[in-house]
Amino acid sequence: MQQLTVELADRSYPIYIGSGLLDQPGLLGSHLSGKQVCVVTDDTVAPLYLARFLGSLAGYQVEQVVLPTGEAFKNWSTLQQIFDGLLAARHDRGTTLIALGGGVIGDMTGFAAACYQRGVNFVQIPTTLLSQVDSSVGGKTGINHPAGKNMIGAFYQPQAVIIDTDSLHTLPEREISAGLAEIIKYGLIRDRAFLDWLEANMSALRALEPSAITEAIARSCAIKADVVAVDEREGGLRAILNLGHTFGHAIEAHQGYGRWLHGEAVGAGMVMALELSRRSGWLSQSDYDHAVKIIRSAGLPVAPPDNMTADDFMRLMAVDKKVVGGQLRLVLLRQLGEAVVTADFDVAALQATLHSEYPSEPL
Amino acid sequence: MQQLTVELADRSYPIYIGSGLLDQPGLLGSHLSGKQVCVVTDDTVAPLYLARFLGSLAGYQVEQVVLPTGEAFKNWSTLQQIFDGLLAARHDRGTTLIALGGGVIGDMTGFAAACYQRGVNFVQIPTTLLSQVDSSVGGKTGINHPAGKNMIGAFYQPQAVIIDTDSLHTLPEREISAGLAEIIKYGLIRDRAFLDWLEANMSALRALEPSAITEAIARSCAIKADVVAVDEREGGLRAILNLGHTFGHAIEAHQGYGRWLHGEAVGAGMVMALELSRRSGWLSQSDYDHAVKIIRSAGLPVAPPDNMTADDFMRLMAVDKKVVGGQLRLVLLRQLGEAVVTADFDVAALQATLHSEYPSEPL
Repeated sequence: MQQLTVELADRSYPIYIGSGLLDQPGLLGSHLSGKQVCVVTDDTVAPLYLARFLGSLAGYQVEQVVLPTGEAFKNWSTLQQIFDGLLAARHDRGTTLIALGGGVIGDMTGFAAACYQRGVNFVQIPTTLLSQVDSSVGGKTGINHPAGKNMIGAFYQPQAVIIDTDSLHTLPEREISAGLAEIIKYGLIRDRAFLDWLEANMSALRALEPSAITEAIARSCAIKADVVAVDEREGGLRAILNLGHTFGHAIEAHQGYGRWLHGEAVGAGMVMALELSRRSGWLSQSDYDHAVKIIRSAGLPVAPPDNMTADDFMRLMAVDKKVVGGQLRLVLLRQLGEAVVTADFDVAALQATLHSEYPSEPL
Repeated sequence: MQQLTVELADRSYPIYIGSGLLDQPGLLGSHLSGKQVCVVTDDTVAPLYLARFLGSLAGYQVEQVVLPTGEAFKNWSTLQQIFDGLLAARHDRGTTLIALGGGVIGDMTGFAAACYQRGVNFVQIPTTLLSQVDSSVGGKTGINHPAGKNMIGAFYQPQAVIIDTDSLHTLPEREISAGLAEIIKYGLIRDRAFLDWLEANMSALRALEPSAITEAIARSCAIKADVVAVDEREGGLRAILNLGHTFGHAIEAHQGYGRWLHGEAVGAGMVMALELSRRSGWLSQSDYDHAVKIIRSAGLPVAPPDNMTADDFMRLMAVDKKVVGGQLRLVLLRQLGEAVVTADFDVAALQATLHSEYPSEPL
């Protein structure tokens, strides 16, 4: 087991990463302060893990809430099911919510914890690769609005994150690739050496080779924890974690949430950010090709959907949360391993990026 | 104008209290950081103040959201109108929400500010006496759930509170009394001298005599600010602000939100808390009579509704947020001017309190 800490003063918390952690109830128990626990999961994860997981909660007053699966249900009426369950079972301020599932479950459970009786404890147990390296760490919680993704939410930190790598074995290959998108992102924005390591270990990672996948998750969480410790509420640095996300969110919104996996949209979005970085004169053609090759080798799309126009992107990117004071800010790369957040890009270069032909064949 | 500060480190903020403050746009302007502003009000306040208020916001990109009036609309679907307005007008993270209205508007606008894009700035401009001395200060925001009041919300502090006492002149007398309930509460829990001052000045206060009402508001806000500075998230001391509220919330829930004004329910609820304090041997009969007389002199009910049984109270109080670990905690008085939060009361005394005959005639 590897263990990291997200350093946030009195809101600091540990991340545990390893195989078989769900079979160590003491790990979870040490982060439960009351007798009431509410496990929130979805109807994909529940048949796989819920019964076994509840077995580890003997002695607690346990409520369970099973939500429908998917980004399409990341909305208020689904969230309401958590509140209804908590209130029906008379859970008080001492309860702890446990998110057992992917990013949607983590985001909704965290937001429910932020809002229930103005804030109760929660623990993240992410079961997808994407949520293990991204949404379970850092305290971003929320739901979607028809007009935009994650528009309603809170910064709210969990008491602990428990990452059992065994849960990855039940994931479809497509979701492994989606998780690798965020892992590659950490190399691109912050750690060139990690990027090279990922390139060398991509086959082992896609095959979920235990030591490789644990190492990749731990290094990803460490980079994210460092960034969040500096800038919890995204006043500055933290925005670099959104590399590819402004383009990616536009793709998800255009296609309808859930059609493209978030990681897939981020994969294509990162290629667009790389392209704009190249057109801005910051990235060489060979660095661009190198990065795109790694993204492709993870099994990710490296081009936006055929049915999206430049106008679609401009319209959908204008409501992105990265817009401040009416100005669109984007995460670009100065070089591989170094990201900047900037509104100071050439608009013509952005337009050219949106009109680019992206390769649909291997480079 | 009187000015106080709520001391919360980097989240400290000023409270301004005085006549004609809405005609000083510079006061508000100094707390707006961006160019976007969204004024949230209700259809009672809008015809009285909105046009004049918008006139003071020249030069800003102003969105206005007018909600239906009343506690019955303090729910998610009404809150959604704020989000819809913000997103339709493309308000970004730099926007400031302004709550222009009573407690319901303040609580909902504050919660919308806490959640919109995971948190934007907001300013409280409370227009009712109740909200001026209570809900606008301290950062409690939220909405109701069919199973309980304020069950969904956040602790979220405003950038400033601007209290223009002129707005009280359009209030019905019943709402002045409701506000006086919370003002009397501050004397009961924390300041015996203030209680005596209130008794001496009750006629002037009910007549909205300017210097008396400004003084009463300022002293109330100062007591609340002190308590909140010590215990922002209600881990301990802050709970004393709920004197009468556990009984009062049960009354509101039983009667249907909005039928009894919040302050009226608190008035009757405080009498019940005084009764239990008396039965616990902490309050003398004469102190009890004295306090009840002051509550009555404010024009408040001093007895629960006739159609509520002891069982109704027990059932409805069990979901109150003051319940932790399954134990009901109540705010009681050790003496006039000194409150305690305790689970250590005699259950028989509580039952007797719920079965008491309360005077419907003047003492």
